[in-house]
Amino acid sequence: MPSASNTSCIKLCRVQGDSVAVDRDKVAVEEPLEIQIGFERKGVGAIRSISVTMRTPGNDEELATGFLFGEGLLNRRSELARIERNESNSTNSVRIHLAAGVRFDFKHLERHFYTTSSCGICGKATLEAVQRLLLNVPRANSSLRLSVATVHSLPSQLKRAQHVFADTGGLHAAALFDTHGDLLAVREDVGRHNAVDKLIGAAWLNGRVPLENSVLFVSGRASFELVQKAVRAGISIFAAVGAPSSLAVELARACGLTLLGFVRDRRFNVYSASYRLDGQFENSAATSVA
Amino acid sequence: MPSASNTSCIKLCRVQGDSVAVDRDKVAVEEPLEIQIGFERKGVGAIRSISVTMRTPGNDEELATGFLFGEGLLNRRSELARIERNESNSTNSVRIHLAAGVRFDFKHLERHFYTTSSCGICGKATLEAVQRLLLNVPRANSSLRLSVATVHSLPSQLKRAQHVFADTGGLHAAALFDTHGDLLAVREDVGRHNAVDKLIGAAWLNGRVPLENSVLFVSGRASFELVQKAVRAGISIFAAVGAPSSLAVELARACGLTLLGFVRDRRFNVYSASYRLDGQFENSAATSVA
Repeated sequence: MPSASNTSCIKLCRVQGDSVAVDRDKVAVEEPLEIQIGFERKGVGAIRSISVTMRTPGNDEELATGFLFGEGLLNRRSELARIERNESNSTNSVRIHLAAGVRFDFKHLERHFYTTSSCGICGKATLEAVQRLLLNVPRANSSLRLSVATVHSLPSQLKRAQHVFADTGGLHAAALFDTHGDLLAVREDVGRHNAVDKLIGAAWLNGRVPLENSVLFVSGRASFELVQKAVRAGISIFAAVGAPSSLAVELARACGLTLLGFVRDRRFNVYSASYRLDGQFENSAATSVA
Repeated sequence: MPSASNTSCIKLCRVQGDSVAVDRDKVAVEEPLEIQIGFERKGVGAIRSISVTMRTPGNDEELATGFLFGEGLLNRRSELARIERNESNSTNSVRIHLAAGVRFDFKHLERHFYTTSSCGICGKATLEAVQRLLLNVPRANSSLRLSVATVHSLPSQLKRAQHVFADTGGLHAAALFDTHGDLLAVREDVGRHNAVDKLIGAAWLNGRVPLENSVLFVSGRASFELVQKAVRAGISIFAAVGAPSSLAVELARACGLTLLGFVRDRRFNVYSASYRLDGQFENSAATSVA
């Protein structure tokens, strides 16, 4: 899975109005990076894994040091002895070796298991691990169908429902629609992941999960973590106003989720499981985009 | 700090071309929410804090259950006994009480201290805690000045420098500029926070932190966590293409950081420390926007 490039070329269907074309395009690569600390304990070298972050490959040493500096775990430049890269695993890793005698506050890390407004991969570093988590999830609904016209109608409906965004220009929204394009629920938050958590949490509290007959539509990009949340909730069609990442496409294909990106201005791209879209997709080469 | 509303009205300066006007506008509220689990251990009630997430208030019960469901920590609806809210602290909290006999996999949480592409508040749940972390940071540079024309030039320069975005439409960028508007460095990533971590990490590795003479410009919104990273790196001027959150404004004001939002199309808003902008700001009522 590790990739040296920060873009990846994939096959997709482009929809504009009623026309459909199979094409290829670049997506931003998203891959896990493990950040480790190398230090000495009683004169013996030790290694500790600090975090796994989903990132675009490139400048990984800077990412690791910038993250640790920002967290207050590294301070002066002299605390760093050297940086070691490891690209032999399925997860890339960067190991920050501390200078002799530097004390690192691991307790600070352990005391606080915090997540942020875009957290979603806690405990699942790799695609394989995620797929294991998703093993017990009901299979995606293969009989669900959605028309192109309904997809085109989603952005304007979401916009009308986004009250706080209209006031502040600063919020993400996530909404559930039925396959007729009727809005079922919408939630807003400064965090994309929070908006999705609120939406799925509400459905779960009402006993409506798995959401096998609903379409999830989000105002931002389609990251790996959002696709994971959708699959976990039994959703079969995920549409996003923004771009998908490479790993989002990979997970959607692995799980049989229909993933739509750049859904706006009567256009969108189909990245996976296009058979759920009515019309020209049934027999197009892109039915099996994978 | 807890607020029932999801928008907050603040004072700001609006800049359009060369004109400046003091105004008020709504920003999206961003506040920490602590998610706790209430469970029984050997017949005795116990409480455990699971996470603190920065979120927009509202639908907090849904957010907590959706988060736990997404993480695979809650599964069936019957595992939930009741939900309890606590708004008496400086941090809001939601306590999810498990039904009798339900086993919760705390080990799953403890084994994996993971962060995501937008992580940044690990270990710092409240504004107060953040301010303590930032106590040792060099004071913001009060002699730094920036012209309105230079601010207007930032978006086009960032766009030219964003190579991967041009290819994929899917990346965030963070850049450092000097006060003449010359680009010093740019980094891109699927995660806004990663782009900033890479940028600051590179500077830190080169011994250039604190970045007291640089302007940080980001392609997305200005969240609390990004402002925190900027302040920690000694940056005095933070400009964003998108909207700031309430807590981002609050932290910028508390730390003397000049925060600019909606920087695009020869317009921007000034949320704090406007005295660093050359011209009409010096004597305007907004000099002390706070």
